[in-house]
Amino acid sequence: MKFIEAISFINDSERIVILPHVSADGDSIGSSFAIKRVLDLMGKKADIFLEEDVQKRYRFATGNIEYLIAGEDGCLKNVKYDLAICVDCADLERLGERKEIFLNSKRKILMDHHEFNSGFADLNYIDVKWSATVMPVYELIKEIDPELINREIARLLYIGLVTDTGGFRHTNTVPKAHIMAAELLEYGINPSEVSQNVFDNMTFGRYLLNKESVNCAEFFFDGKVCICYMPEDVFIKCGASEEDSEGLTDYLRNIEGVEVSVFIRDKNGGMKISIRAKSYVDVATVAAVFSGGGHKRAAGASWNGSYEEFKERFLKELEPVI
Amino acid sequence: MKFIEAISFINDSERIVILPHVSADGDSIGSSFAIKRVLDLMGKKADIFLEEDVQKRYRFATGNIEYLIAGEDGCLKNVKYDLAICVDCADLERLGERKEIFLNSKRKILMDHHEFNSGFADLNYIDVKWSATVMPVYELIKEIDPELINREIARLLYIGLVTDTGGFRHTNTVPKAHIMAAELLEYGINPSEVSQNVFDNMTFGRYLLNKESVNCAEFFFDGKVCICYMPEDVFIKCGASEEDSEGLTDYLRNIEGVEVSVFIRDKNGGMKISIRAKSYVDVATVAAVFSGGGHKRAAGASWNGSYEEFKERFLKELEPVI
Repeated sequence: MKFIEAISFINDSERIVILPHVSADGDSIGSSFAIKRVLDLMGKKADIFLEEDVQKRYRFATGNIEYLIAGEDGCLKNVKYDLAICVDCADLERLGERKEIFLNSKRKILMDHHEFNSGFADLNYIDVKWSATVMPVYELIKEIDPELINREIARLLYIGLVTDTGGFRHTNTVPKAHIMAAELLEYGINPSEVSQNVFDNMTFGRYLLNKESVNCAEFFFDGKVCICYMPEDVFIKCGASEEDSEGLTDYLRNIEGVEVSVFIRDKNGGMKISIRAKSYVDVATVAAVFSGGGHKRAAGASWNGSYEEFKERFLKELEPVI
Repeated sequence: MKFIEAISFINDSERIVILPHVSADGDSIGSSFAIKRVLDLMGKKADIFLEEDVQKRYRFATGNIEYLIAGEDGCLKNVKYDLAICVDCADLERLGERKEIFLNSKRKILMDHHEFNSGFADLNYIDVKWSATVMPVYELIKEIDPELINREIARLLYIGLVTDTGGFRHTNTVPKAHIMAAELLEYGINPSEVSQNVFDNMTFGRYLLNKESVNCAEFFFDGKVCICYMPEDVFIKCGASEEDSEGLTDYLRNIEGVEVSVFIRDKNGGMKISIRAKSYVDVATVAAVFSGGGHKRAAGASWNGSYEEFKERFLKELEPVI
């Protein structure tokens, strides 16, 4: 009974708030909405409190479930909850405006799988070996009562699993993630429906940005490095937003022969740099030179000079490792 | 002991040939090369006989394993094998030039998961409920001796699993496919290495074709239908081959709001038509009007008139169902 204390916290509470991190991704959304549905079925008064609205791609699964948004429902910030359940959140600051709601709650539970999580709740369930936070959430629900799980809850948990593992493709995909997927599929989830909503949908703006990348991209070191600077006017021409450019760095990295891809766009008077590597270059180290950071194969930075200056400096940094 | 007869056939044979279908895909390749490796370890003389060379994307996994190609090693066609194991093949004709090798073999085993397979071998293991042919192959190997499975064999089986389920995204993904994936990951496979090789690599020709599709595509019925005719000169301009255009129909279907995508290219003096639907249109029925066929959401046809004639007729067929 791994979650015996958490279950006792839940049983003792009437009013419960569920708090995922800011810019909630699929794992945060899946975890939060699955917990909410289970608490509903247990007869609790449970609120999901998000920082921003649910991203469009997840709404097919969250459509029937109520939630609050920090900006819109700010007045509710002063409600004192019996219990706060914070999910997928490595740091108290990642609760944004909702930090107070968490701190004001009588008791606190944290479930997460990120590195360097200090464990800022009363009960902390943190393990970096979990592929996604929905994994402990699923275990918790099974310990509460496996009979509570229905198709809707299974689909929410499945969304967390597929988004944080990149569709079972990232190296963080542990065997147990597949076992969990096998069990969830038994509830009649349609994996094709989920992946089309979550992964496949390409906005028209994004479709046009893909085209423009051919005009904007420059290749160096025999095609091993691809740098694409897309000035604001290209976005305007394509009717594209920042969200439309998500994943464009990966798209460029996927080109045959490319080891490092860089996507640059204008932001706040400077430039926002996104960097990816395919298999051997440590781009976190390169990003650190530009006061940025991230993971070995996916990092980011910002730049306040011209594009030409950035390019020169970046290629110089890359030369010994490419 | 589901495969007791097959194992007895294998034990009784010295010289064994493994035959996947023409244009071998990931499931065919994974099944064939995994069986070959197991037979090697059993001390058999086993030949994989392909119709064409292994596709580039699978070579990271097949690199160290020998195989024969029908055109190049045609002289070996007259070898009389003790046993032929035909994998992932719904029809004898799908063996192409290698049909004779199969027919000349003393004994014959067939393992497949396609519908309408007549079962043309002595022992037929066919079940449409298998997501991929590597599923019964894995069961067979475990029944022979689970100790034979190593990282190389596990990776080959895993490739069959991910390619035929579209990375566990297609509706044919059964819970057992995930259980198998969980077991295979225990052998130390890197799922990211596999998906980068098998799914992510985009040839430069393909990258340019994506761009050109913006110029060639036409949208109808409020953007619900996207038809893209790419004449031969566009392929020439992009330095792209037919293989580079694989997946382009899916790419167009993924555009927001598109329900049906059609990709058309010149072929053998006529046109080759590829059709995809996102969620509700039965494109197999539409394709049948053009003497084509396929699945509900993925079908193909050919056309011998002009593009304008095709378009007019196609849109008329689609009107009642879109």
